Amino acid sequence: MPTEVLAVLTAPDRDGPAASAPYRFADVAAPLVAAKDLGVTRGEGVFETLGVNAGRAQAVEAHLARMQRSAAMLELPEPDLSAWRETLFAVVERLPADREASVKLVYTRGAEGGDRPTGWAYGTTAPDHSAARTRGLAVTVLDRGLPHDITGTAPWLLQGAKTLSYAMNMAALREARRRDADDAVFVSSDDRLLEGPTSSLLLRFGDRLVTPSTSQGILPGTTQADAFRFARGEGLTTSYEVLHRSALEQADALWLLSSVRLAAPVRSVDGVERGVDAAFSGLLNAALLARRE
Amino acid sequence: MPTEVLAVLTAPDRDGPAASAPYRFADVAAPLVAAKDLGVTRGEGVFETLGVNAGRAQAVEAHLARMQRSAAMLELPEPDLSAWRETLFAVVERLPADREASVKLVYTRGAEGGDRPTGWAYGTTAPDHSAARTRGLAVTVLDRGLPHDITGTAPWLLQGAKTLSYAMNMAALREARRRDADDAVFVSSDDRLLEGPTSSLLLRFGDRLVTPSTSQGILPGTTQADAFRFARGEGLTTSYEVLHRSALEQADALWLLSSVRLAAPVRSVDGVERGVDAAFSGLLNAALLARRE
Repeated sequence: MPTEVLAVLTAPDRDGPAASAPYRFADVAAPLVAAKDLGVTRGEGVFETLGVNAGRAQAVEAHLARMQRSAAMLELPEPDLSAWRETLFAVVERLPADREASVKLVYTRGAEGGDRPTGWAYGTTAPDHSAARTRGLAVTVLDRGLPHDITGTAPWLLQGAKTLSYAMNMAALREARRRDADDAVFVSSDDRLLEGPTSSLLLRFGDRLVTPSTSQGILPGTTQADAFRFARGEGLTTSYEVLHRSALEQADALWLLSSVRLAAPVRSVDGVERGVDAAFSGLLNAALLARRE
Repeated sequence: MPTEVLAVLTAPDRDGPAASAPYRFADVAAPLVAAKDLGVTRGEGVFETLGVNAGRAQAVEAHLARMQRSAAMLELPEPDLSAWRETLFAVVERLPADREASVKLVYTRGAEGGDRPTGWAYGTTAPDHSAARTRGLAVTVLDRGLPHDITGTAPWLLQGAKTLSYAMNMAALREARRRDADDAVFVSSDDRLLEGPTSSLLLRFGDRLVTPSTSQGILPGTTQADAFRFARGEGLTTSYEVLHRSALEQADALWLLSSVRLAAPVRSVDGVERGVDAAFSGLLNAALLARRE
């Protein structure tokens, strides 16, 4: 059984009432969200999932900044980041320090007709991702349906916001499993590489690491940003680029990056085997696990 | 203050455990959904909103059938429609019979790691929609970003399923208000007419009523289906068609149809005034309000 910790924010937004404590711990199994909460009735909210290792949450400020950005895209009340930070640290402190873990931050618009958003932090010990980090993943390529330059003209599509409206991302993962794949990579309707349903895509060409440009309505990856930092320290160059899907075949190696599974090398794309860069994968995951912030 | 009624299903799916009662009434303000429920963390669930008039829920079987269809698209356990029907009727019975009302059915995948879906029915008295039904709506046209024929090739995009992942639909309504409009009409990236964020589009050309074809990944409208039935009784012809966006200018009259607001004539499109067909709107709304099922 995993260890689980739940903390509910007293005032998750900056304009909330002053509170004596920023959070209260709650029973994970007990009901928390009202039937009228727009987080569940309309998927109107945002989230972040942070990795935790050796008792430390990773990339905390990058995740909080992204939550703030997603919230602004949904026109949610501005989150009180200091309250979120304090709640996050309290959850991490209750998780076993000798295991990898994750904390999910969820911030919703709150009950319909009300004026108070809802927020909580849920922590749990993580499954063992060592096979994905070493053996790698079989991935399939899926059409995201939208042109790569859609965000500039249609911001209401919320591309690039990490919202609770993730049913499509989950359906994409089911489609991947139906194709005997472990995960998916989305391409735009005009064949540009985007991201995975719950991950960023990283490509290596010789001494150059590249990730698809976030100008294409995809999430700025927190793990990908740290991977770039590590890679530059190793003497590689890094860049954000608009890439045609054929780059999947041209790259020397591919990874999917996410906050808890970290760097998972891609071992095949739609059934075509790809070389796994085991050496760099090992170094990169060690560096990601060792992050202190 | 609106009257509100909440009933929680004991076993919302067909494979659920046998229960002595299919539902229990619950406090609307009390927490209902667990922090781990995939309905809130991933928008993984489906919903239906039914109109209620004179103590009767309208288009019950059409809504239940659509919920079942949406659930299948999300690969949720098959809903137990008889339990949902019984719960729905129990909620309607507790609502004041002398006012219009609505009941929302919500069905989620349930807590992550569990194997039990979550379901509830929430009823409330409806706001007064008479202004929308008579004066009509100012609408704006918004790009949905996807080509009109996307569902055939990319079912994982869940187009045509009524899911809880509605953040984009809500953002589209905010964009409409920003443009001083009351509502929106989506067009595909290749300029075909689709639907509103929470409504179906109906167009009148002489004695012909037309609605965009559901082959385009849009919801089959329950109110629209009943409007077609009424119109045929009045001697009009009805059809489902793939329509270019220019049909918005060519049509003699336009409506947005939904289960609670019913038939709202469109009085302007992006600031261009349109004639409101007050006579037909009045007859249609009277017929929709008089439905018995």
